[in-house]
Amino acid sequence: MPNFAAMKGKKPLILVCNDDGITAPGIEALVNAMLPLGDVVVVAPDSPQSGTGHAITISKPLRLEKNHVFGDDIPSYQCSGTPADCVKLGVDKVMHRKPDLLVSGINHGSNSSINVIYSGTMSAAVEAGIEGIPAVGFSLLNYAYDADFTASAHFAQKIAAEILKEGMPDDVILNVNIPDLPLEEIKGMKICRQARAKWVEEFDERTDPYKRKYYWLTGKFNNMDKGEDTDEWALAHNYVSVVPVQFDLTAHHAISILNTWDL
Amino acid sequence: MPNFAAMKGKKPLILVCNDDGITAPGIEALVNAMLPLGDVVVVAPDSPQSGTGHAITISKPLRLEKNHVFGDDIPSYQCSGTPADCVKLGVDKVMHRKPDLLVSGINHGSNSSINVIYSGTMSAAVEAGIEGIPAVGFSLLNYAYDADFTASAHFAQKIAAEILKEGMPDDVILNVNIPDLPLEEIKGMKICRQARAKWVEEFDERTDPYKRKYYWLTGKFNNMDKGEDTDEWALAHNYVSVVPVQFDLTAHHAISILNTWDL
Repeated sequence: MPNFAAMKGKKPLILVCNDDGITAPGIEALVNAMLPLGDVVVVAPDSPQSGTGHAITISKPLRLEKNHVFGDDIPSYQCSGTPADCVKLGVDKVMHRKPDLLVSGINHGSNSSINVIYSGTMSAAVEAGIEGIPAVGFSLLNYAYDADFTASAHFAQKIAAEILKEGMPDDVILNVNIPDLPLEEIKGMKICRQARAKWVEEFDERTDPYKRKYYWLTGKFNNMDKGEDTDEWALAHNYVSVVPVQFDLTAHHAISILNTWDL
Repeated sequence: MPNFAAMKGKKPLILVCNDDGITAPGIEALVNAMLPLGDVVVVAPDSPQSGTGHAITISKPLRLEKNHVFGDDIPSYQCSGTPADCVKLGVDKVMHRKPDLLVSGINHGSNSSINVIYSGTMSAAVEAGIEGIPAVGFSLLNYAYDADFTASAHFAQKIAAEILKEGMPDDVILNVNIPDLPLEEIKGMKICRQARAKWVEEFDERTDPYKRKYYWLTGKFNNMDKGEDTDEWALAHNYVSVVPVQFDLTAHHAISILNTWDL
C-alpha cells in the first residue's frame, strides 16, 4: 500500500504499542527512535502482557487513561487490555485519522521463529495489519529490564523510515528481531523466513504452602531447521532478522490433499 | 504424518480441549462424539477463555485438577490456564504417550475467516499441531449456551475418523466450522481457504458509577472476499467449512519484494 501521508505532504502519524507495558524501557527507546520520523502517539498496556498471543478482551470492559509517561508533548494512553485491544482502541478512540505506521516493541526478549505465535508484541502488529495499517514488531534478544536498546533503536528507525518510504506489501507485516550486540558487531539485516522450530515443555512442578501442586511453564527452544534463509540462522550469525508475516493462515498446499479425503 | 496407533494395532488416544471451559455443552458433545473412536482424555480450562488467542501463561503458575465432569470412566482435568496451556500440560503431565489426535471445541460460536487468529479453540489445535499431533478445532455458528450440537457432533466424528484413517499433512491442522442448521439441511463439507475479512470495531463507551469511562469491545464482521472457495462462502451456502491451517506465518511471496528495499 502506498504512503498516503507522504502523498498528501502530511507528517506521518505513528502509533506505538508494546506488550511489556507502557513503562518498559523498550517502548521508551522505540518512541525516541520514531520522533524524527513523524507525529507519535502511544497506546500501550498498563501492565506486562508477555505471552498473551492474539488475545482480545471480550468478557470484561476496557479502561483507557491518558498519561504523561513520555512528557507533555507526546500523547500517551494506557489500556487495561491486551496489545491487540490497544491497537483497536487506539485506532477507534484515540487517533483522529488512520495511522501511517504501527510500531510495536521494542520487546524485551526474542520473538523469532515460532515465538511469533505466542507474542503479544507481534499481535499488536498483526492487528494493525488486519486493519490495513503498515506495521512492524521489534524484539531484542535480551529479556533483561535494563537491556541496551541502542542498536535495536537504530535498526527500528531505519526500517520504519523505509516502510514510510516504500509502503508495505498488502496483508503483510514485519517481524524484526535484533541480536543482543553492540551496533558495530551487527553485520546488517537479512530478509528471512520463519525457522521451523518449537518449544519442548519442561513444567516445573512445585507444592504450595497448602500442599497443593502447581506448575510453572518452562521449556527448551528446539530449532529443527538447518536452512540458511531462516530468522534463527540470521540471528545466530549476528544479523538482524526481518520476516514478512501474513494473517491468511490457510495452508494452501494442503487443499488438494484434503480434497482426496472421503468427507 | 501416518497414524502410528493404528499401525501398532492400538486404540487411538484422543485429547479433547476447548476454550469455553470444561463445563460447556459443546465439549460434552465433542467428548461423546469421540468415544466410539478411541480412548478419550479431557484437559480443558476451568473457566471460559473465549478470544484468548494463542496466549500462554508465563507470569503466574498453573493449576491442574482431576475431576469427574464426564463420569468415572473418562479421565478429565481442569486447568487454570489457556487452551494452549491445557495442551502443553495435557501432553507433558497427564498423558502417558503422545495423543493420536487433539480435538478442540465444539466452540459456541464461529471461528471462520480471520476469527482463527483470535480463537482460543483454534489455539489448542495450533499448539498440538506445533507438537506434531494431528489436530482439529470445531466451531458451531451459534453462540448460545443451549445451542443444538447434534449436526456438529456428527461432522466432528466423521472428520476425526478420517484424520485417524488418513493421517494429517505435516505442519497442518484443520479449522472446521458448522452452520447452525439441522443435519438434514447441511449440504456436506467443503475444503476452503480462509476468507479475507475483518472486524470493524464499534466500542460501546459507558460511564461507571464512579464517573469513569469504560469500553466494551464490539464490532461488525466485514467480509471483503467474494471468492467462492472461502469458508464464508461455504457456510453461507449451508456447507461445513474445512480450512487447512498452518503455523508458518511467513509471507513467502513478500520476501522478493523486501529484498529490493534499502535495508
